[in-house]
Amino acid sequence: MVKRWNTAKQVAEKAWEMGRSDPRKIVFSAKMGLALTLISFLIYLKEPFKDLIRYSVWAILTVVVVFEFSIGATLSKGFNRGLGTFSAAGLALAMAELSKLAEDWQRLMIIVNIFTVGFCATYAKIYPTLKPYEYGFRVFLITYCFITVSGYRTGEFLNTAINRFLLIALGASVSLGVNICIYPIWAGEDLHNLVTKNFIGVATSLEGVVNHYLQCVEYKKVPSKILIYQASDDPVYSGYRSAVESKSKEDALMGFAVWEPPHGRYNMFRYPWKNYVKVSGALRHCAFTVMAMHGCILSEIQAPAEKRLVFRSEVQRVGCEGARVLRELGSKVKKMEKLGPGDLLFEVHVAAEQLQRKIDQKSYLLVNSESWEIGNRPIEDEESDPQQEGKFLEHKSRSEAVLDLRMVEVPHSWEGNVTLADNPPTDASPNMFRKELSWPDQIYQKSNPVAKEGQESKTYESATSLSLATFISLLIEFVARLQNLVDSFEELGETANFFDPLDQRPPV
Amino acid sequence: MVKRWNTAKQVAEKAWEMGRSDPRKIVFSAKMGLALTLISFLIYLKEPFKDLIRYSVWAILTVVVVFEFSIGATLSKGFNRGLGTFSAAGLALAMAELSKLAEDWQRLMIIVNIFTVGFCATYAKIYPTLKPYEYGFRVFLITYCFITVSGYRTGEFLNTAINRFLLIALGASVSLGVNICIYPIWAGEDLHNLVTKNFIGVATSLEGVVNHYLQCVEYKKVPSKILIYQASDDPVYSGYRSAVESKSKEDALMGFAVWEPPHGRYNMFRYPWKNYVKVSGALRHCAFTVMAMHGCILSEIQAPAEKRLVFRSEVQRVGCEGARVLRELGSKVKKMEKLGPGDLLFEVHVAAEQLQRKIDQKSYLLVNSESWEIGNRPIEDEESDPQQEGKFLEHKSRSEAVLDLRMVEVPHSWEGNVTLADNPPTDASPNMFRKELSWPDQIYQKSNPVAKEGQESKTYESATSLSLATFISLLIEFVARLQNLVDSFEELGETANFFDPLDQRPPV
Repeated sequence: MVKRWNTAKQVAEKAWEMGRSDPRKIVFSAKMGLALTLISFLIYLKEPFKDLIRYSVWAILTVVVVFEFSIGATLSKGFNRGLGTFSAAGLALAMAELSKLAEDWQRLMIIVNIFTVGFCATYAKIYPTLKPYEYGFRVFLITYCFITVSGYRTGEFLNTAINRFLLIALGASVSLGVNICIYPIWAGEDLHNLVTKNFIGVATSLEGVVNHYLQCVEYKKVPSKILIYQASDDPVYSGYRSAVESKSKEDALMGFAVWEPPHGRYNMFRYPWKNYVKVSGALRHCAFTVMAMHGCILSEIQAPAEKRLVFRSEVQRVGCEGARVLRELGSKVKKMEKLGPGDLLFEVHVAAEQLQRKIDQKSYLLVNSESWEIGNRPIEDEESDPQQEGKFLEHKSRSEAVLDLRMVEVPHSWEGNVTLADNPPTDASPNMFRKELSWPDQIYQKSNPVAKEGQESKTYESATSLSLATFISLLIEFVARLQNLVDSFEELGETANFFDPLDQRPPV
Repeated sequence: MVKRWNTAKQVAEKAWEMGRSDPRKIVFSAKMGLALTLISFLIYLKEPFKDLIRYSVWAILTVVVVFEFSIGATLSKGFNRGLGTFSAAGLALAMAELSKLAEDWQRLMIIVNIFTVGFCATYAKIYPTLKPYEYGFRVFLITYCFITVSGYRTGEFLNTAINRFLLIALGASVSLGVNICIYPIWAGEDLHNLVTKNFIGVATSLEGVVNHYLQCVEYKKVPSKILIYQASDDPVYSGYRSAVESKSKEDALMGFAVWEPPHGRYNMFRYPWKNYVKVSGALRHCAFTVMAMHGCILSEIQAPAEKRLVFRSEVQRVGCEGARVLRELGSKVKKMEKLGPGDLLFEVHVAAEQLQRKIDQKSYLLVNSESWEIGNRPIEDEESDPQQEGKFLEHKSRSEAVLDLRMVEVPHSWEGNVTLADNPPTDASPNMFRKELSWPDQIYQKSNPVAKEGQESKTYESATSLSLATFISLLIEFVARLQNLVDSFEELGETANFFDPLDQRPPV
């Protein structure tokens, strides 16, 4: 009993929270209540029309079915319903006239007709390009069958059709009136906000990923929800995930938004909603690299912390600048403003360039030189330029001298040798022989369950430094993809007639 | 005219093609026609029941609305409809009795009730956890309003409710009967096939990506559809994309499949459809690395062909083995068979290990040593071990000797220097000075629109080799993620009681 009470309390709290966070939902519910109330005023109808109540079901049906959250959805459903009803009524009347000619076979003909129409309409309904009109086909079928069947009973095909149509028109006008005139909720506005939100989400994820990576945050156990790509609380993950996942939502909203008349800030016929979806698609293309970077954190292959630290400030800067660009674009989309005169990407390109240079200089950190086939760095260098690079070299050489003591591991040669052909031929054969011997040994270890774990970790161990290279490379790829995003944004700005920030300036 | 004729021909051809590729769609349409035909036999009703035709709309409505493609969807909609009708009827009757007590205020009370019920039901409908029952709420509203309004007119609340219920029951039983008894179409079967298809798709993409990468296929212009993540014909792209995109479809199918009774190969109560979705989620997690690998092909940063060739056979082998594992798992899912005794991942792990070794040896190819801060490889080595490595070194040194002639590019030092702190302090200051001078020069070039292009390409030029490292690293990450996939598959095999291939063997 107490438990139930608690559950009820929780549900009530959640419901309250839902209303508080999006008051439009409360307004929508109230509007629905109002529309139904208006329709039920039918009960006040006096005599000559009193008979209409018998058909009141059509008006109620129309209100409940057509009344959707956004104006666009309401209009598109209303249109579907109207079109379905009209064409079905026309067809049914024509068929009725035809079947009257059949005299004795009338009933049979009606039934055959219903089968044929049912088959064709259903087949058309599942035809891919007609998917959006699915609802219209349903209405078509209902109307056709109803008029045919009930018309047969009364013989008043036309009367049935007209009454039905009147009440549907009444229901539709009540719902459209209430829905559009009182606090309209626009699908286009929702689409606009969704795109803006995606920008913020990806920017947050990017920052999170870069910071986590530099702080060497590791998942003790990767949340299983991430492994099977389900929603999870992790803010880094949910940021890009919601941008990636919102595709179908965007398409649906766009489908509704195109039905909406020009309104508010979207004051233009044929408003380019498509371009919002395009911008969001380009953002998604960027989000995929953020996702891949996050993969570097999720991976069991982790670059050592000290190596990450070397690139810390550059990586951090690229991350910050990248996120800044995303936020900037997001706020431009929100404010519906064109790009300013400067190059938005300038800073992030400089940062990426700087990172690139740093890598160029320090790429020895990204690889394991200890097992290079071409031999390790000689222990004592000639120190040809002692002033500039001497100390550095000495330091490096010593550290490698230690590494040199380990056995050089060389891979098995089955196919490996073939591709070596485009390197100059070497006298590597003695080496090969050693490999051939050591390989079966490892195979054996592998099939030995105790040794397996160790063997595997050894395999991935040397990949750790490459993982850093991957992260950085993905970050740079992210920056490269920003151009595409900016291009889509500019296209949107042009087609949607975004406001030019330069116009605001006082004339010089 | 000719044009229209052609369009019509095309549509007809496509419709025919749709039917040929999935004959279930034709069957479904015919079933729908049949159900409607059966319902329209109402017109043959003789006297005492003849009045029922007046309510025939309910039966027709129920058939059209409840009749869905799969059994699960039909059952869940039927249940929703039944529940909605029942509870609405109950509430409406109770309210009617109550409002009778109000006497003079009866009408007002009815209208207030309708508003309240409409508000509450709509608000509940958009409450997230109740989303799947959205349809039930609609039916609830329709029924409640209809009974209240038309009951008021006739005063026969109970009669209206009962007639309505009878015809809905008739419609529901006709559609369920036809839909289940004649060639049933199961949502579970669809889910099963979808998951299988995803495996094949990702495997194809993986092979395609690896082959394209090794053949250095480049997109002259990246298809803009890929850049904004829309469906495209590219087989490599569409393979992983459909696996990534199928999430919502899977969720919908799962929602229907849980309604389906045990049938055919899924002969078990509470069949673990959830695990199919889990396996598909784990596959999606793998598909994301394939997507990131494809990103390496789409990128403007391209590794030189000769370097790719060095790793050719190893990369190829990992790709083939990875695809083989996916296909194998896909066919196991299809045949509903557990894993065999061997380690499915053994071969792919060996291949990955081999690739890893090769990288270890050849990682100098993945970086640009020409601009190492620690100095380039000295031009003339001591040739301490001339027998084994001499020729190689000589070759390498010479190629670098050429590179050495170029100016060494060093990055700007703002923040870069801070992170150098964990390297031993060096006398790099003279170098710094040179940099400081060259940097503003580049900034200038950058703001110069003509030079901009060249500058940018220079920035990315040196990333080319790292791009190869990224590709390989992602490939290895892909292999690492396979383990998770295999685990999910094993869980599915356990819970869904997959057939054990060992049982087939004759007893020894």
